[in-house]
Amino acid sequence: MPYFDAASSAPLHPVARQALLASLDEGWADPARLYREGRRAALLLDAARETAAEAVGCRPDELVFTSSGTRAVHSAVSGSLAGRRRVGRHLVLSAVEHSSVLHSAAALEAAGGSSTEVPVDRTGAVDPAAYGRALRPDTALACLQSANHEVGTVQPVAEVAEICAGAGVPLLVDAAQSLGWGPVPGRWSLLAASAHKWGGPAGVGLLAVRKGVRFASQGPVDERESGRAAGFENIPAIVAAAASLRAVRAEAAAEDARLRALVDRVRAAVAALVPDVEVTGDPVRRLPHLVTFSCLYVDGETLLHELDRAGFSVSSGSSCTSSTLTPSHVLKAMGVLTEGNIRVSLPAGTPEGDVDAFLGVLPGVVAEVRERLGAPAPAAPSSAPRASLVVDALGRRCPMPVIELAKVIGEVPVGGTVTVLSDDEAARLDIPAWCAMREQEYVGEEPADRGSAYVVRRLV
Amino acid sequence: MPYFDAASSAPLHPVARQALLASLDEGWADPARLYREGRRAALLLDAARETAAEAVGCRPDELVFTSSGTRAVHSAVSGSLAGRRRVGRHLVLSAVEHSSVLHSAAALEAAGGSSTEVPVDRTGAVDPAAYGRALRPDTALACLQSANHEVGTVQPVAEVAEICAGAGVPLLVDAAQSLGWGPVPGRWSLLAASAHKWGGPAGVGLLAVRKGVRFASQGPVDERESGRAAGFENIPAIVAAAASLRAVRAEAAAEDARLRALVDRVRAAVAALVPDVEVTGDPVRRLPHLVTFSCLYVDGETLLHELDRAGFSVSSGSSCTSSTLTPSHVLKAMGVLTEGNIRVSLPAGTPEGDVDAFLGVLPGVVAEVRERLGAPAPAAPSSAPRASLVVDALGRRCPMPVIELAKVIGEVPVGGTVTVLSDDEAARLDIPAWCAMREQEYVGEEPADRGSAYVVRRLV
Repeated sequence: MPYFDAASSAPLHPVARQALLASLDEGWADPARLYREGRRAALLLDAARETAAEAVGCRPDELVFTSSGTRAVHSAVSGSLAGRRRVGRHLVLSAVEHSSVLHSAAALEAAGGSSTEVPVDRTGAVDPAAYGRALRPDTALACLQSANHEVGTVQPVAEVAEICAGAGVPLLVDAAQSLGWGPVPGRWSLLAASAHKWGGPAGVGLLAVRKGVRFASQGPVDERESGRAAGFENIPAIVAAAASLRAVRAEAAAEDARLRALVDRVRAAVAALVPDVEVTGDPVRRLPHLVTFSCLYVDGETLLHELDRAGFSVSSGSSCTSSTLTPSHVLKAMGVLTEGNIRVSLPAGTPEGDVDAFLGVLPGVVAEVRERLGAPAPAAPSSAPRASLVVDALGRRCPMPVIELAKVIGEVPVGGTVTVLSDDEAARLDIPAWCAMREQEYVGEEPADRGSAYVVRRLV
Repeated sequence: MPYFDAASSAPLHPVARQALLASLDEGWADPARLYREGRRAALLLDAARETAAEAVGCRPDELVFTSSGTRAVHSAVSGSLAGRRRVGRHLVLSAVEHSSVLHSAAALEAAGGSSTEVPVDRTGAVDPAAYGRALRPDTALACLQSANHEVGTVQPVAEVAEICAGAGVPLLVDAAQSLGWGPVPGRWSLLAASAHKWGGPAGVGLLAVRKGVRFASQGPVDERESGRAAGFENIPAIVAAAASLRAVRAEAAAEDARLRALVDRVRAAVAALVPDVEVTGDPVRRLPHLVTFSCLYVDGETLLHELDRAGFSVSSGSSCTSSTLTPSHVLKAMGVLTEGNIRVSLPAGTPEGDVDAFLGVLPGVVAEVRERLGAPAPAAPSSAPRASLVVDALGRRCPMPVIELAKVIGEVPVGGTVTVLSDDEAARLDIPAWCAMREQEYVGEEPADRGSAYVVRRLV
């Protein structure tokens, strides 16, 4: 039963499992205590810190273990902002950061600070020059992920770090998706990561703060982990996290090449075998194991269920799979299609055969979902074309507004317009994306009594 | 090699170990995902929540898992204060709470709020009526531990909860030390606990918030655990924590009786076998497995080291064992001796023979440390007594000021005084405590050029 959602959480690496078991008997005591059980726990913790620091590329005393990657990000942002409060309360981040960064920015704004989101191009990457222009004299902190968690695009971290260093602004890199594959390049100031993304156990994050970076931990004082991560240390899990980081790094070069080729195969095959599909993200500057694509006229939740029934576990950024019914902010910022979205992220060791099996099943599953939803087949022009048409898709959710649009576009003459009335959040993204894919003209959005009216002009 | 510091961290319970191993393969995926690995993880998480809620005595939807007991306390305090901000920003707590509560109170004060510490008696217990008097119209939250972590005294939680309920103030109970022994009685509003105290793994805390209690989680938004505990859930550890809580509860009645008798034996034997010792805490209303005592004329750090060399792991609240060189705030609040302090907390299953071996070794170790430090033997009165004496103990640390005092008290006549000059923080507590133990009069403390002058009048 192939699991293709490593970007969400990876199964425990065998080395992590082994290290966890071995340290359950040695690492349960309080490392701050003076007796032998405490000293033994402290030795394990020190050794894990050395290992993790080597993998990160920092000094051991610059690195602390947190209880999750999310906590590492929250602490990194709040500690940096407090440490540089005199400079100002402005934060720069990319528009495609992880929710832990976005929510930290929202918390800053709720507390009276401000933030600037740097846009991304259609591949999901920021432009370093644009990033630099967002820095202000009152910018306390800049945040940039090393690679995007939804589409795999690698960000120009080293270039942005140089620009930030030149402006005297510390750069926090969220390295959650990439740290297992290699160290983050460039002169970053802070780094956060999460062990369960590289096959370590849950419950362990990393926070590195370079010497010289102003940092003032927030929240009640706690002496553990240099005052940067409150609560009793989970040493067996920390030992397992460090051991598995070293193990995946040892395998990284070979596995990168192997999975990169498999993902290239998926990118090519999906584009070739599934009609009306958009494969997203940078095809080259990307994580080795991750590919995302969106299928027109398909509902993401049904697609996930059908793939799950067929034995494949994948995730989706479509609005129908989100508890808030809003599509992925990453796909939105990239301006790509959000409907029928599927992210495939291969765990290390994924056999080639599993990928081929997925490619064997996918086209049929997509076709079946489309058929069930009444998606349009290439339509013959209507006998009596009308110059314009209005489609009422109010109350209908993604992908129905786009399906209704596609069904009737052939009924207006070239030059004629179709207006889609929709109150679905995804339509705002997916109707322009459909136009781009279909080479039709997206005229624009107009207010309507309910929802919005999206106007499309037929060009072909 | 007997480990007698269960109050700090208990070794992993066999059931916890088993549950952890069993769920490593089932519980690593994201429980929010729709595919089978996610559903399996969600089922494990739900089952663990049911088990833990049953042990706590609350509804499953009132309970979340945090990454530690400390985090549970921090979140409980900040969430309650924010939820009741309109009422006011005043916090009531006992003077002997865990540092996580004290530091939360300090954070409140730093942010412009205020707090009242309710004093304790010489056994370490609060008086419910005095606790009630500390409540004010602007009190947003009251905090009380179920039992003290340093001396084992059980607090009158049910009575205090009634008083708080009557005043409309929510009561947060820090149940870290007692939850493995039984549910917390009474009408509490919030409860925090920590799994590694009952033989669960590190990395898991509990936070229960009764329905109807106003609560507004602080920090950046995170949707996991009802928004009350940010970060990816550590499901294998949560499963192990819940399983071991159920297991220790099943054994609690029998183990309570057995350990209680062993601790009674320690209390009696220490008082009988070690001269100049004070056994602290309530002898009856106490945790079953914990006893603390202080030995005059002994330095706690040396005592810990010697006991460690003899194979016994215990902890101490003496100033010399603290990184800040201040004695335990608990012993200080109780007004008992802090020097030569030893806490013995027996893990479940401690064999009787280990306790007897400890009692066999202890008197010799204490005597040896005393001899090395030049502690006084009962002195014959000097031939030419002087009406008053000044002892310069400046720059000398606990237990030296008390040793110097004891050495010369025989040199002044009954009615004469000894003035001890000391700049050691522990002297402020230990000189009055020595007077109480020795039936001498503690006259008081006077400012001096350096440190303080502590005046003692010889009565016997």
